[in-house]
Amino acid sequence: MEQNGKGIGAATGLAIGTAVIWKKEEVSVQERSITDLSSELQRFKQAIQATKDQVQILRKQTADRMGESEAAIFDAHLAFLDDPGFIGEMEQRINTKKQAADWACQSVTGEFSSLFSNMEDEYMRARADDIRDVGNRLLQNIIGKPPLDLGSVKPESIMIAEELTPSETAQFSEAIIGMITARGSKTAHAAIMARTLGIPAVLGLGSFMQQIKDGDTIILDGSSGEVIVNPNDSLLSEVKQKIVEQNQLQASALQEAAGDAYTSDRKRIQVLANIGSPQDVPDALANHAEGIGLFRTEFLYLENTKWPTEEEQFSSYKQVLEAFPSKPVIIRTLDIGGDKHLPYAELPKEENPFLGLRAVRYCLANPDVFKTQLRALLRASVHGSLWIMFPMIGSVSEILQVKQVLEECKQELATKKIPYSDQIKVGIMVEIPAAVIHADELAKEVDFMSIGTNDLTQYTLAADRGNEQVAHLYDPTHPAVLKLVKMTCEACHRAGIPAGMCGELAGDARMTEILVGLGLDELSMSAKAIPQVKQQIRKIESSQASSLALEALHQR
Amino acid sequence: MEQNGKGIGAATGLAIGTAVIWKKEEVSVQERSITDLSSELQRFKQAIQATKDQVQILRKQTADRMGESEAAIFDAHLAFLDDPGFIGEMEQRINTKKQAADWACQSVTGEFSSLFSNMEDEYMRARADDIRDVGNRLLQNIIGKPPLDLGSVKPESIMIAEELTPSETAQFSEAIIGMITARGSKTAHAAIMARTLGIPAVLGLGSFMQQIKDGDTIILDGSSGEVIVNPNDSLLSEVKQKIVEQNQLQASALQEAAGDAYTSDRKRIQVLANIGSPQDVPDALANHAEGIGLFRTEFLYLENTKWPTEEEQFSSYKQVLEAFPSKPVIIRTLDIGGDKHLPYAELPKEENPFLGLRAVRYCLANPDVFKTQLRALLRASVHGSLWIMFPMIGSVSEILQVKQVLEECKQELATKKIPYSDQIKVGIMVEIPAAVIHADELAKEVDFMSIGTNDLTQYTLAADRGNEQVAHLYDPTHPAVLKLVKMTCEACHRAGIPAGMCGELAGDARMTEILVGLGLDELSMSAKAIPQVKQQIRKIESSQASSLALEALHQR
Repeated sequence: MEQNGKGIGAATGLAIGTAVIWKKEEVSVQERSITDLSSELQRFKQAIQATKDQVQILRKQTADRMGESEAAIFDAHLAFLDDPGFIGEMEQRINTKKQAADWACQSVTGEFSSLFSNMEDEYMRARADDIRDVGNRLLQNIIGKPPLDLGSVKPESIMIAEELTPSETAQFSEAIIGMITARGSKTAHAAIMARTLGIPAVLGLGSFMQQIKDGDTIILDGSSGEVIVNPNDSLLSEVKQKIVEQNQLQASALQEAAGDAYTSDRKRIQVLANIGSPQDVPDALANHAEGIGLFRTEFLYLENTKWPTEEEQFSSYKQVLEAFPSKPVIIRTLDIGGDKHLPYAELPKEENPFLGLRAVRYCLANPDVFKTQLRALLRASVHGSLWIMFPMIGSVSEILQVKQVLEECKQELATKKIPYSDQIKVGIMVEIPAAVIHADELAKEVDFMSIGTNDLTQYTLAADRGNEQVAHLYDPTHPAVLKLVKMTCEACHRAGIPAGMCGELAGDARMTEILVGLGLDELSMSAKAIPQVKQQIRKIESSQASSLALEALHQR
Repeated sequence: MEQNGKGIGAATGLAIGTAVIWKKEEVSVQERSITDLSSELQRFKQAIQATKDQVQILRKQTADRMGESEAAIFDAHLAFLDDPGFIGEMEQRINTKKQAADWACQSVTGEFSSLFSNMEDEYMRARADDIRDVGNRLLQNIIGKPPLDLGSVKPESIMIAEELTPSETAQFSEAIIGMITARGSKTAHAAIMARTLGIPAVLGLGSFMQQIKDGDTIILDGSSGEVIVNPNDSLLSEVKQKIVEQNQLQASALQEAAGDAYTSDRKRIQVLANIGSPQDVPDALANHAEGIGLFRTEFLYLENTKWPTEEEQFSSYKQVLEAFPSKPVIIRTLDIGGDKHLPYAELPKEENPFLGLRAVRYCLANPDVFKTQLRALLRASVHGSLWIMFPMIGSVSEILQVKQVLEECKQELATKKIPYSDQIKVGIMVEIPAAVIHADELAKEVDFMSIGTNDLTQYTLAADRGNEQVAHLYDPTHPAVLKLVKMTCEACHRAGIPAGMCGELAGDARMTEILVGLGLDELSMSAKAIPQVKQQIRKIESSQASSLALEALHQR
């Protein structure tokens, strides 16, 4: 019988597929001692090697399919497999207490993960999941039941899970064409991964999940959040037809995506790509990005176990700049804090990290970290058209401080006769309400602004974008948010500088006309969204777009 | 030698006094067994009784001096002294293991507090402090060294502490004329307590604290945050003179405080009081409040161990309404969540509680709780001039939902023939940026608005008001915040409804002219601030105030 559920549409698109219920296989063994020590140690070492091999493969698959920053999660797993505290403790229990390898593995994993999960530091607490993940994998290898990988599911699968960890979504193969979770809200990590993979996702489906059984046929609408289990034949063929049409649209959009985007009345709207690492550049080029609107530099830091050197950073920035000759490449300075943790950054524990020491606030408080990045950016600037963007700016005094630090870095390079471009543009990310309200004053100090709708929405509506309790309140199309977008554009234009947007909203083709109507000159999005947004832009007539935008501002 | 330090000025005023360094006396005993069981049990029971007596006295002192809501902290202490898990476990160890009472007390206290401090639930974690507090007090009574209470310090003391817990500040006697802490920021609990007591406070002094010794003479400026240790004679007499003058000003302001406040060009500005319970009413009346601008109803909930009944609430609301016949009494509906926890409310654990399920969001998700309060308010409405205020409203749909629930409650009462006033006004607290941006639409749905500057500031600037890491960014006088105040006033006036303010900013007499210039019709503050604010208002000339406000909006 057909059944309908509704969750949060978290990544757009339609899919029809077969339900695969993802249950975490947690094996469990009993305490047991051994007599043949050397063969037990042998068994243990083979299992470690097998585990490492599997994780290495997963790491590579993930890097190829999703990029280095997503693959970094497996480095933590590999590190635990080499950790003398973790693995050494197991070995010792086998050696001295004559425990069976499986029992030693299970008990040490349990103790370590509970140790980590009780730590004050949130980052360390999150490591408890890694320990459980990798410990469980090792245990399965010891007992000779290597884990079923998410990568091995049948084609046309729709993954159904209570929730999905980063290490799980990282394993998604192309066989998985959609995902549904019981928990999690729109901007959870899983949603971002789904958008990167270009598959539809519905999150936060709640108890309706229990209606779905393995092998059920599922229709998934990642826009509306609708989930239909075992649809009747006529609905099924209707949706199939729709998917065919949508794929044709996507394909034809891609065919027409080359060249700059102009509205029908010849207003140029720049369509740029958001990237997370140099590995995302080919995809951006393939989808005809007119440059980079947001290069999130966090990956350089998150995949490292210590502060990345100036040299490491320089090489990444240079690579991206060279890929887009004479096109703008907007590189955002480090945005950690909030929901992004760096083990070696010693971030303070905060009651409300989204309202705390994050992004440029952290950088100003840690000038060494900040200056290393700025010097790397300056040095890379001779290889392209660099626009430096500072996140979380809320006042004129902050942008003045930041520019002062940048000036100091220029002096340092000049003293050492290291060249940098004199064409670098400096801008801010507009994501704090104060930045909009005070935009006229800020605009006098910068060369461009780019609106980060994810954060701007959560502060404007006081609703954490990762908290399902208030998911019904988090709405980037709330008229107050759109009004702030308009105010930002107006302030930019009064100051004669371009107004851009690089939040999730910018990549939603259904919103393109309104966004153009609000006055945006530039939209930056995940590469896959570019063709359809360009197509939309070409259909837009400016005055119509303005009236549509005005309407959106007055919805209640 | 004179030394100068600077912290965060958290409660205005000047004070000269003697430093009293508050070190928490943590006694420690060794493991020891006993032979005479019955006399040990006797000793234990006497100590429990003595501890209860002391806590009862503290509770009463606090209730008298600071009100019921502040005294409630000691109810938790009393509850632990009756807890069969906590006290019973000690008794059992004395009985069966023949442990000395002091050792049993110390070890059980340690185990319980570490158990609580590891709990997931933040409220339960906070209870670990209560357990340590009361367990330590009990231990001191067992060994015959009853604790020195904060209430017993010499007159003219300035309390110096690493930080102060609610149970400590609650014990402050009139001998304490100022306070300094190494940690904590402007809106921490300790700051609110200092303002309630009317004593100056400097928080977050940091390592300069170590320069201060017991008995040092201290000059404390709670406005600038300056702390001067062992000042020279000329400075000392200068500041003494200033304090005398300020006291005279305060006294003369109080003498002139009767009557309504008008600017020199006869614009009426209503000056109202913020209260936390009916016990605060006499103070509000003594300071000539023209009504209540904010009755925080949380106390009713926080001092209870279960949901307060409709009857209990009705009686409190009625009491306040009757104290202000024919004057507005603005009662705010329950604002829990964020930094306010209710053990029995089962609030979800959130990453960023200030951006989570709080205030009216919680109430809409828990209609039984909400309707009980609304029925109590409706029933009380016949006893005065009730204005109901809903906190954390961010959209028209929310205010419509809230009004719908209110309507249902009216229907319920009507069916039962229970009377309620038909003159009740309905308003919202403006504290989410979206409410300001969308104020024109919201104003059509309400009878009044009141700006909550504390929350509005933290959301507008994305800076947690309790986080010292970003204390330098939390600034209610940031031009963006003032601009939002102006926008709110303008929207209210377009809709023909009054615009008020009930955040901390409203009680700062140095800001009064600017606030009037921004267009506010009503200011609500802690009772003690009323006389000086009224005095300020009477000096104001409206057009001058407007220019001053305009200047403030354009500071950079």
